[in-house]
Amino acid sequence: MDIKAFVLEKALDAKKGARALGKASSVEKNTALIKMAEALRQKASELMEENKKDIAYAEEKGLSKALIDRLTLNEKRINEMAQGLEEIAALPDPVGEITKIWQRPNGMRVGRMRVPIGVIGIIYESRPNVTADATGLCLKAGNAVLLRGGSEAINSNKAIVNILREAVKAAGLHEGAVTFIDIPDREAIMEMLKLEGIVDLIIPRGGEGLIRAVTENSRIPVLKHYKGVCHVFVDRDADLIMAEEICFNAKVQRPGTCNAMETMLIDEPIAEGFLPKMLKRFEETGVELRGCKKTLAIYPDINEVKEEDFYKEYLDLILNVKVVADMDEAMEHIAKYGSAHTDTIVTKDYAKAMRFLREVDSSSVMVNVSTRFSDGFQYGLGAEIGIATDKIHARGPMGLEELTCTKFIVMGDGQLRE
Amino acid sequence: MDIKAFVLEKALDAKKGARALGKASSVEKNTALIKMAEALRQKASELMEENKKDIAYAEEKGLSKALIDRLTLNEKRINEMAQGLEEIAALPDPVGEITKIWQRPNGMRVGRMRVPIGVIGIIYESRPNVTADATGLCLKAGNAVLLRGGSEAINSNKAIVNILREAVKAAGLHEGAVTFIDIPDREAIMEMLKLEGIVDLIIPRGGEGLIRAVTENSRIPVLKHYKGVCHVFVDRDADLIMAEEICFNAKVQRPGTCNAMETMLIDEPIAEGFLPKMLKRFEETGVELRGCKKTLAIYPDINEVKEEDFYKEYLDLILNVKVVADMDEAMEHIAKYGSAHTDTIVTKDYAKAMRFLREVDSSSVMVNVSTRFSDGFQYGLGAEIGIATDKIHARGPMGLEELTCTKFIVMGDGQLRE
Repeated sequence: MDIKAFVLEKALDAKKGARALGKASSVEKNTALIKMAEALRQKASELMEENKKDIAYAEEKGLSKALIDRLTLNEKRINEMAQGLEEIAALPDPVGEITKIWQRPNGMRVGRMRVPIGVIGIIYESRPNVTADATGLCLKAGNAVLLRGGSEAINSNKAIVNILREAVKAAGLHEGAVTFIDIPDREAIMEMLKLEGIVDLIIPRGGEGLIRAVTENSRIPVLKHYKGVCHVFVDRDADLIMAEEICFNAKVQRPGTCNAMETMLIDEPIAEGFLPKMLKRFEETGVELRGCKKTLAIYPDINEVKEEDFYKEYLDLILNVKVVADMDEAMEHIAKYGSAHTDTIVTKDYAKAMRFLREVDSSSVMVNVSTRFSDGFQYGLGAEIGIATDKIHARGPMGLEELTCTKFIVMGDGQLRE
Repeated sequence: MDIKAFVLEKALDAKKGARALGKASSVEKNTALIKMAEALRQKASELMEENKKDIAYAEEKGLSKALIDRLTLNEKRINEMAQGLEEIAALPDPVGEITKIWQRPNGMRVGRMRVPIGVIGIIYESRPNVTADATGLCLKAGNAVLLRGGSEAINSNKAIVNILREAVKAAGLHEGAVTFIDIPDREAIMEMLKLEGIVDLIIPRGGEGLIRAVTENSRIPVLKHYKGVCHVFVDRDADLIMAEEICFNAKVQRPGTCNAMETMLIDEPIAEGFLPKMLKRFEETGVELRGCKKTLAIYPDINEVKEEDFYKEYLDLILNVKVVADMDEAMEHIAKYGSAHTDTIVTKDYAKAMRFLREVDSSSVMVNVSTRFSDGFQYGLGAEIGIATDKIHARGPMGLEELTCTKFIVMGDGQLRE
């Protein structure tokens, strides 16, 4: 099989879909989304049949329980996918919005209008729900998707894609808007990453290894975050009761998420008063603690943290604890070991709050709230396709607006350049 | 010499500069810009001495007159560089601007704050003024530059960079903010393009060959446009007097620029009435015309246009003329042969104007004005670092705002995630 030609053909079909979708009205796009949701619910049992093939194969291969759980589709999960699509249908359409418009001295009006990006390549791992979620968000923003899901979920993904494509067709849009690369070869990813000029953006979703491989090999812009190494800095002027609640929430509320806290930074003057009670509470909740030397001097019966631990995203009930001399050392630590994802200061001091907001170079910088809030729904942006920690286009949760770009529009009445 | 180590060291110095600059106040940055301008004027004669070395070498190598002209620095051009820096100092500082802020039901305030990108690599060809222009814009937006100018201008560039660095130092900022890779080897560019995580963005300025080579080899995001193949479509419902003036201005006012018209598209029903007078006027001004078959039927004594001509950026007094059946054919032509730079419709029809604005996928889409207006100053954005036709981050003229990104800021009073 000529994989290069195969991938190219799929991508060209997606491009046709993108051109058609770029001109579609909000009503047409919302109709497609609602039809998709209906079809997923109607065909839930077929979908579960196909999903069983993937699960059987995964069990045969001896994949972990956690992985098999992520792979599994049941009535509830299918309903959640459908609901997600309906929620996207209810969000405002970003395309065509004129974000700003102004008049020039010669009477010409210049403005910026939101436009779709085009074809978005989504490379993802085992969760089949990504197929519907990512498609829905991209479609609402006028973009075609070129999907490349993990081989473990290939039967489930194919079945979902078929359902979504039928709905797109039934809504009168071009099926290329939802295009799936249905061959398991890794080479297909490499070919996809070369299609500059056809595929406009790549969004990889999965482990750090996948994301690094995609970024290193892509000629197409990639939006991503590698990992979430998030910090809470408890300043000497913090409300210590608030600080304890924020730190506890940031670590424990859902430790497996990318915006959970991995390292707690404590200002030296308050360390002795704050740490014993805080750390005891963590230990009682089953959190494994790793402390710096100064922490151990205050709370001796825990392991010492190693330097490499500060780079780690545990995604688990493990926490690094470090005592810092002052806010500057805290910010240095965040700059060096952090992943530019989400970082919080707890303080009552106005100047320090403002300085932290300004100087910490992360995609979400917070004062007096839990790091767990950095996602699209919590920010009021609606569903998101991921979180970016890159330096261009988008930082933080990427929702519908981040799946568009703006072009300039100029309206005149015969102006000439002198 | 270990080129890899050399480039890495320079880039790390730029990164230090970027961190310092990211925290600098508007006053500090403006002071640096004004000191740069003063120093360029004061040291104009030294600068011209160094420039003479480059000119002598260029003459020895037999470079073209046009190239030597671009290379040459005289009193007037040095003054223009200085003035450019002063104008940038006078523009508002984009960094720290909170572009939007809203409140969540739990009382948490969420907003977007403009932040610098970091280290911006500029790869450019012979014009030494780019050294000062690009540095000034990047610095104002809080970014360090890692400059890699063409070998023909190396003495001029070194001299300019030394002047700029001294001014940066005198303003109390870190000299790494202006870093120049002062070795002529092409390998230095290749090494620079691998520094993901240190260099945050690459902006190549120069011919299409340079830009393609940079884009293909870069692991770092690149903002660019390859070329400007711009169109004017004269609709059947156009004011034909206005249309003639717009087409003439778009082609002739400054044909060597990227937003000059390369192809004129004429709606069939008006072709017989419009073309003879228009084309005669072009010919009398020395424009070489290349017409489609239908154009030749109306205006026979010109050459026939070849298909490949439609892809060409002439940058010269040459024009393709094509008669199209309707607006759809015009938009198809623009989508197929255009470069997504700047395209104009001339029409009195409201619905067609709106449709053109919405559906044409170019970085600037216009109604009833000359394509020549698509630049930062004409749009009221101030100085620009270039024009992007990419699909992410920025489309159209890139000014100070496009040299920043936004991060999320969240201000709470103890909110926890449930």
